[in-house]
Amino acid sequence: MGLGRKLKYGMVGGGPGAFIGGVHRIAAVMDGANELVAGAFSTKFEKSKQQGEELYLDPNRVYGDYKEMAEKEASLPEGERIDFVSIVTPNSMHFPVAKAFLEAGIHVICDKPMTASVEEAEELCRLAKEKDLVFAVTYNYTGYPMVKQAKRLIKDGKLGKIRKVVVEYPQGWLSSPIDAEGDKQASWRTDPQHAGVSSCIGDLGSHAENLVSYVTGLEIEELCADMTTFVPGRRLEDDGNVLIHYKDGAKGILYASQISAGEENALNLRVYGEKASVEWEQENPNYLTVKYLDKPREVWARGNGYVCEEAGANSRLPFGHPEGFFEAFANVYTAATAAIRKKIAGEKITAADLDFPSVQDGAKGVNFIHKAVESGKKKGWVDASYTPPA
Amino acid sequence: MGLGRKLKYGMVGGGPGAFIGGVHRIAAVMDGANELVAGAFSTKFEKSKQQGEELYLDPNRVYGDYKEMAEKEASLPEGERIDFVSIVTPNSMHFPVAKAFLEAGIHVICDKPMTASVEEAEELCRLAKEKDLVFAVTYNYTGYPMVKQAKRLIKDGKLGKIRKVVVEYPQGWLSSPIDAEGDKQASWRTDPQHAGVSSCIGDLGSHAENLVSYVTGLEIEELCADMTTFVPGRRLEDDGNVLIHYKDGAKGILYASQISAGEENALNLRVYGEKASVEWEQENPNYLTVKYLDKPREVWARGNGYVCEEAGANSRLPFGHPEGFFEAFANVYTAATAAIRKKIAGEKITAADLDFPSVQDGAKGVNFIHKAVESGKKKGWVDASYTPPA
Amino acid sequence: MGLGRKLKYGMVGGGPGAFIGGVHRIAAVMDGANELVAGAFSTKFEKSKQQGEELYLDPNRVYGDYKEMAEKEASLPEGERIDFVSIVTPNSMHFPVAKAFLEAGIHVICDKPMTASVEEAEELCRLAKEKDLVFAVTYNYTGYPMVKQAKRLIKDGKLGKIRKVVVEYPQGWLSSPIDAEGDKQASWRTDPQHAGVSSCIGDLGSHAENLVSYVTGLEIEELCADMTTFVPGRRLEDDGNVLIHYKDGAKGILYASQISAGEENALNLRVYGEKASVEWEQENPNYLTVKYLDKPREVWARGNGYVCEEAGANSRLPFGHPEGFFEAFANVYTAATAAIRKKIAGEKITAADLDFPSVQDGAKGVNFIHKAVESGKKKGWVDASYTPPA
Amino acid sequence: MGLGRKLKYGMVGGGPGAFIGGVHRIAAVMDGANELVAGAFSTKFEKSKQQGEELYLDPNRVYGDYKEMAEKEASLPEGERIDFVSIVTPNSMHFPVAKAFLEAGIHVICDKPMTASVEEAEELCRLAKEKDLVFAVTYNYTGYPMVKQAKRLIKDGKLGKIRKVVVEYPQGWLSSPIDAEGDKQASWRTDPQHAGVSSCIGDLGSHAENLVSYVTGLEIEELCADMTTFVPGRRLEDDGNVLIHYKDGAKGILYASQISAGEENALNLRVYGEKASVEWEQENPNYLTVKYLDKPREVWARGNGYVCEEAGANSRLPFGHPEGFFEAFANVYTAATAAIRKKIAGEKITAADLDFPSVQDGAKGVNFIHKAVESGKKKGWVDASYTPPA
Repeated sequence: MGLGRKLKYGMVGGGPGAFIGGVHRIAAVMDGANELVAGAFSTKFEKSKQQGEELYLDPNRVYGDYKEMAEKEASLPEGERIDFVSIVTPNSMHFPVAKAFLEAGIHVICDKPMTASVEEAEELCRLAKEKDLVFAVTYNYTGYPMVKQAKRLIKDGKLGKIRKVVVEYPQGWLSSPIDAEGDKQASWRTDPQHAGVSSCIGDLGSHAENLVSYVTGLEIEELCADMTTFVPGRRLEDDGNVLIHYKDGAKGILYASQISAGEENALNLRVYGEKASVEWEQENPNYLTVKYLDKPREVWARGNGYVCEEAGANSRLPFGHPEGFFEAFANVYTAATAAIRKKIAGEKITAADLDFPSVQDGAKGVNFIHKAVESGKKKGWVDASYTPPA
Repeated sequence: MGLGRKLKYGMVGGGPGAFIGGVHRIAAVMDGANELVAGAFSTKFEKSKQQGEELYLDPNRVYGDYKEMAEKEASLPEGERIDFVSIVTPNSMHFPVAKAFLEAGIHVICDKPMTASVEEAEELCRLAKEKDLVFAVTYNYTGYPMVKQAKRLIKDGKLGKIRKVVVEYPQGWLSSPIDAEGDKQASWRTDPQHAGVSSCIGDLGSHAENLVSYVTGLEIEELCADMTTFVPGRRLEDDGNVLIHYKDGAKGILYASQISAGEENALNLRVYGEKASVEWEQENPNYLTVKYLDKPREVWARGNGYVCEEAGANSRLPFGHPEGFFEAFANVYTAATAAIRKKIAGEKITAADLDFPSVQDGAKGVNFIHKAVESGKKKGWVDASYTPPA
Repeated sequence: MGLGRKLKYGMVGGGPGAFIGGVHRIAAVMDGANELVAGAFSTKFEKSKQQGEELYLDPNRVYGDYKEMAEKEASLPEGERIDFVSIVTPNSMHFPVAKAFLEAGIHVICDKPMTASVEEAEELCRLAKEKDLVFAVTYNYTGYPMVKQAKRLIKDGKLGKIRKVVVEYPQGWLSSPIDAEGDKQASWRTDPQHAGVSSCIGDLGSHAENLVSYVTGLEIEELCADMTTFVPGRRLEDDGNVLIHYKDGAKGILYASQISAGEENALNLRVYGEKASVEWEQENPNYLTVKYLDKPREVWARGNGYVCEEAGANSRLPFGHPEGFFEAFANVYTAATAAIRKKIAGEKITAADLDFPSVQDGAKGVNFIHKAVESGKKKGWVDASYTPPA
Repeated sequence: MGLGRKLKYGMVGGGPGAFIGGVHRIAAVMDGANELVAGAFSTKFEKSKQQGEELYLDPNRVYGDYKEMAEKEASLPEGERIDFVSIVTPNSMHFPVAKAFLEAGIHVICDKPMTASVEEAEELCRLAKEKDLVFAVTYNYTGYPMVKQAKRLIKDGKLGKIRKVVVEYPQGWLSSPIDAEGDKQASWRTDPQHAGVSSCIGDLGSHAENLVSYVTGLEIEELCADMTTFVPGRRLEDDGNVLIHYKDGAKGILYASQISAGEENALNLRVYGEKASVEWEQENPNYLTVKYLDKPREVWARGNGYVCEEAGANSRLPFGHPEGFFEAFANVYTAATAAIRKKIAGEKITAADLDFPSVQDGAKGVNFIHKAVESGKKKGWVDASYTPPA
């Protein structure tokens, strides 16, 4: 940490009442390494200024829009200007905002799904490479220590060859037509103009896809999706069930839902290998269950001496002191900003420094969403193999 | 119970070492209403005699084969002869044995899947009707009290219109090629000659299909199955994932697996309605979780005063004193044999007397298995609507 | 099983409406080795006859009282007369009934607590020895396979020296004055004339005491009890908390309650050793959790190949097919009646044949109850070490 | 929040390697309202400076000891000087440090147990009052939203009159003599000079005592403790079991342990009333189970619309997005620092502003510890009623 100072960052989106902006702000500063100094929090300047005030920001660094912010911040000297930007707008704005800051030479941490189209996603891949900037996508569930432990067990061959993956992500908050009744988040998430081609698979399914990819390393070959809009009048699907064939023979079930009445945020992953399997539940995230063919199940618990290095390094508390969503989210920030810090300090970045979701992961997620939509329309299997620009 | 005596029954199959025969025997006598008096336990007469001895049976009523048994028992006077037969052979024998006893005028309780083909299944439907005999199929999971409570909540509209059903039935016991290594049960269950066209969907998937049908009343319209044989050399599939469209718009995921390493018998049902949902886990069967949009989850527990009449009537113990697999299995027997008792006593049978899986349920199960196999081969959606002969 | 016939048994108590009589009847015949042939089910002959009819018994073997039954059954020839008696009356009658059958030369299976006084308990110890008869006490919770597994792990030293035991047994069914409102079971259980000196510790605490003794082998040295009657007008305590010092330095907490609103039958045992600990919950009895200092927790599941011989021998179903209260209860019966069968057949009985609660265990339970009452009255520690007559 | 700036704070203790200092630092800044500006992190100045550097502090505000820090900070103008101090030293230093800062006119947030003796505790009570300063004690478990929900349900009478409380706090980390082997935290926690008269009850039991007091409002009348030192050579008890009589008739069991092998941080609270009960587990803190006499159990989940105002206000995330230990800890900080902010701004403080553990709660905890030790030595019940100086 040779920089000898906190990193400075700015935020686009995350104005009054928005949920995910506050999450990013807590995650960004949890480890005391970053500080928020600038923002364009809302498309309405008044709201943006109000948010800046609540955050005790210098009013001169609260901007009318992201373009002004990118331009003015880029003109400040290093150490004073923002080192990176956090993008927490509705989906459709991710691309133009990210593009603007990349072009201004500023590192980017962007919410998911990364862009509205595969073309946009690939342009960001190319731009991040060209500008040699860090670009992280907040697939936050990969930040959980016990997710990292699952990945490690699989990588070390403890499960044997993977045969089957079941990943489910049911929520119930859109069971009623609250989007039509004025709920702000529900409205944009089901509005094609802001959310893109998909609501449920776009918001939840892409987390599930990324989680499987991160933990198992499996690559999708083809998929067959069943997409349904249950709530009358809704313009995007609120439920999606997907059968998946992975390369090398593994099979998968991935489903996401926004109309599973009474479910909260029940992301659950089960990976079955030839010798053993693992199960992880997001709502009980400090534990990982390992199931064997011929010996008792084990419940691996965060914070113990027996967990792998990555799980240990991504923990802040001893065993039995539960960590949660914020801490996992912060792990994405801490990894990405450590890489940014190294870039700025001119230090060498190794593979181990890159344990956070990349712009390529973002592109893979966008491709998955589009393929699921295509399969649903076709009512059958579609080829979904994909390699983003390196 | 006007008959004033225990019912007498005989068993076909269930010789030394067989698992399910012993389950039927415990289930049949749990409530003190039936007694085993005859049997053709094995295709090998020596083994059959050995089994009869262990069960303290009269050696004269241990038979060389089911044909002899059907014929000789039918020739005995009522009150002495068996009132019903339990069929617990490998799948492919269910049909000829059931046919023989129906033709001999003897009531039948038969294990599942009921027959190897839809044609056989339909012939049993017609024969049972023609002979006016009770024919029960031991889809035993419908015997659990909290399954009946789930059915009741749905019937009473507590969940609203059903939107989605997720039923899963993973096991891991066939993860290794134990069928090729001589395990007897594994061998016949993966042998097309004894098991029929399917192993995993035939054994487990059909339980799942029946459970959904029993609890929700939903009828399958079309399905898309992904069937896989993971273990090299195995002749039938050991994993099946099925997307389902039910009539009237509900969607479903049904999956079964024999290679989910470390899973035991993890049948799990989740039914989501417009207003609420229910979840039931076979491995923790005394509880039913009810999840709401806007109030705390409830955990309904067997044996309490608040459960419905059917759940109460199918319990034998107070709350907190766990019941299990045998008791649920016994509930199927107790309901079916109560109906047989009424038939013999010449009493009127009402709809409430028929809360056990019927020969039509058996036929629906056989059709489901065949449609899943067909869809898997076709790699796409197939029409799976079906109405068995009344 | 050289006897070549089922054992015959009779029952005292267990008339219409009684709960535990039905449990004993299911447990006794579960494995097909015993049959009920006689009974004195109620102090009212009419009720006794009604019960006999419902059980399809020969009316000549339904008796007016236990004395007549003991006398007449003893006069029948072996093979026709009852081989053993099951005593399921309210507590205060256990002693005279047991004494009568022992004196008549008939083996006894008796519910707990065994007697109302320590003197009575010791007389039964002496009588059983003198008559060389099997005397089992239905501390049924020791019949659970995973309880036997816990005992095995401790015996094999897997936990190291035992330091602490926490056993709790809360129920809530007596939270309201249902005893004063006519509930039959509640009435006798809180009536000193029928229940003895204690209600809560007598009914529940003695199960807890026996469970600890069975699993750990620890012997109580002294105890300090806090006994409370919460419901106004109730004549016996409905809650008891006990601190325990075991011989050799282990410490314990044992508590039982009938007024823990909302608890069902939540018997729970935790045993902590120097190296590891075990936890078992009666309401989820197919699992045993083993917790270590430095490696992941294990969940041992009934029915697996890795469980100990005793746990395996006391299981009837494969893993994942839940067993419950009846099956554990049946294990006590099956063990005790196997010993009775050997006695009758003149075969040698080994230590392994005696894995069921003995008349000495019954006496220890009675002593524990009396010491807890004494301590509560004294409001302080009392010496509670005790050795029953061999 | 009329102050228009973040509060500034300093820390005493929390040097390199200390666990709880880092927790306080994350908790203090989570909501963006406070910033760390000064510290005396270690008794060794070098270590203190190293810690300051890692935290990017101004080296001029890293002090050699707490006395210097109190003096110099007090001499700075308001807005520049620290508004409050966080005390995270070993127990025995809490008193002198707190005294110094109170006397310097600086608000205090202090770890628990508050002091080594009741006399010291009472002096702090008087001093805080005299100086009109906020004094919060970090009994952090009361910060959990679902703990606040439990308190609300009880206050609103949903449980009826409280009859019984069972609170347990087992840990296993001191099962082995790691204190003798150089583990730093283990060493001071079992060293009377640093920890005070008690280890296990002092560290864990006092949390349990405070939790009961917070949730139920019950006051202890008398208690009977059984204190044990299991690990040879250890100088303070590592296990304590306490029977409690509360005023107004409720009974309690409180136990804490550091030698419960395999337990992590298993603080668990069960409160039984005449009509219902609640159960809360610290290791699964987002849920509260409510158990009724005659209807299904409910699982109340954090973040839902149906939770009480206090539970809602102390949540930062929607349902299903787990919060944990840091967030609860932060709630104590956020409440205490909001009160400090009001004090500084000269605003009126209402009862609702004081939902954090007070100096009086700290004194009650110290008294409890001393009474448990006294009872253990006496081996019997002792009067433990206590009212701290207002």
